[in-house]
Amino acid sequence: MPGRPTTSQTPTRLLRYAAGRAEGRGDELATEEPLEIRLAGGGVRRTVALTMRTPGADAELAAGFLFGEGIVRERDEIRGIAAGDPEAADPRARGNVVTVDLGDRPLPDLGGLERHFFATSACGVCGRAGLEALRVRAAPLPPGPSVAPATLLALPRALAAAQGVFAATGGLHAAALFDAAGELQALREDVGRHNALDKLVGWALLAGRLPLAAGVVLVSGRASFEILQKTLAAGVPVVCAVSAPSSLAVELAQSFGVTLVGFLRGDRFNVYSAPERVAPLPL
Amino acid sequence: MPGRPTTSQTPTRLLRYAAGRAEGRGDELATEEPLEIRLAGGGVRRTVALTMRTPGADAELAAGFLFGEGIVRERDEIRGIAAGDPEAADPRARGNVVTVDLGDRPLPDLGGLERHFFATSACGVCGRAGLEALRVRAAPLPPGPSVAPATLLALPRALAAAQGVFAATGGLHAAALFDAAGELQALREDVGRHNALDKLVGWALLAGRLPLAAGVVLVSGRASFEILQKTLAAGVPVVCAVSAPSSLAVELAQSFGVTLVGFLRGDRFNVYSAPERVAPLPL
Repeated sequence: MPGRPTTSQTPTRLLRYAAGRAEGRGDELATEEPLEIRLAGGGVRRTVALTMRTPGADAELAAGFLFGEGIVRERDEIRGIAAGDPEAADPRARGNVVTVDLGDRPLPDLGGLERHFFATSACGVCGRAGLEALRVRAAPLPPGPSVAPATLLALPRALAAAQGVFAATGGLHAAALFDAAGELQALREDVGRHNALDKLVGWALLAGRLPLAAGVVLVSGRASFEILQKTLAAGVPVVCAVSAPSSLAVELAQSFGVTLVGFLRGDRFNVYSAPERVAPLPL
Repeated sequence: MPGRPTTSQTPTRLLRYAAGRAEGRGDELATEEPLEIRLAGGGVRRTVALTMRTPGADAELAAGFLFGEGIVRERDEIRGIAAGDPEAADPRARGNVVTVDLGDRPLPDLGGLERHFFATSACGVCGRAGLEALRVRAAPLPPGPSVAPATLLALPRALAAAQGVFAATGGLHAAALFDAAGELQALREDVGRHNALDKLVGWALLAGRLPLAAGVVLVSGRASFEILQKTLAAGVPVVCAVSAPSSLAVELAQSFGVTLVGFLRGDRFNVYSAPERVAPLPL
């Protein structure tokens, strides 16, 4: 469709009310569009997910999503990733499709993905079976890296600087990879925080950089179970959140030896698990 | 399991680093646990969803989720809601199940729910078919209510006061219903913002208060497509968010005549659609 947004920002008109006065003005919105993720293999094509996302980095998003769900485990399993579907009946849908091609191999078992949505009473996340499955999939975490407190404190500013003014106003969530010295390696953004992390992990998968055994990941929002699940699959030893972690995120981090840092703001942060990677910690 | 959290807060131990010093201390986390939503009807029982949620108000969450998905449309369709499953094999799972009983009626068509996850290329949200389906389901919005700017500006403080210190630190998302004079009617919280809104809508459904034709809803985070989808199904004419709306949220609001207010903070806010319900607006 001509004029459809294909970028991360969409212009809009609004009424701004401030200090007792209202005026019309233009502004930018974070673009949100559905993305259909298709898997092709052995002559079969199947839709495996529909997610609301910010357009851009769709190939990385699809790769990271499939990796996080355990459907794709190695970069070499992917023969190619095609963005868009020029034959879609709805013109608007044409840019909102991405197909991950596994070549001649038959499609992998999608049972795990379905369980993700339609759980049985032996459901994965409730019980030991799920944690064990995650343990098998996740690369063993190394003892390092060692990250200095001052390095951690500098990460939010580095993230905000890289995001730019628009995203920093709250329009977009971000997930960023740093090295142990605090150098930014990659940054991905999305209206959904899970998507931002999927894009980051997908980038790492496609670049042949997994597991991220010396990596420090910072997410702009909170740390939930799903955030930890995704970083664990990618082998990230240090996970930081600008806001609060949930109880299950802390439980997962403690169980797998992930260093989980929360409320990373200003001159302070909390360490919820594996504090030995934050050094030296002046107690 | 003895000692498992069944409340919205879970105690933890952490290392707090502040101003160059680290010390161990106790703190509270927002509880996150999986919830399996089951539907029973006509002698058949089926799991329809698994969501990560903060325990509490599970019946409202299930009712609101099923209403938002169009599976349950009237309060009278629900014969009862049972929390927990004492026979679950995993002790931890026993409190993480809720069953909505539709009585003798056969289970409704769950095709829409499945499309929600596994979309076809004629997928709902991309095309006109989806918007039309939503239009049929959503109650027509009334021209009112009229809400004064000063009333809107007071909502975030009322929300924060009702949430309390813990939630206000960032641990929990909130969704609140106000009347047009700014009086708080109901507040629900969750680690997930969609769940907080599902709980609020489920409360309204079970209390026989739908559609919320004179209601003003405030969500603590951003306004996404899904937030607007849920408020539209509940017939809410004025939707406010403390943070940014997405492009698709604005599009949906404009298409259905919802008054969408974003960045509602301090002495200011933005109106993205249907500003006639905000009056008087001194231009």
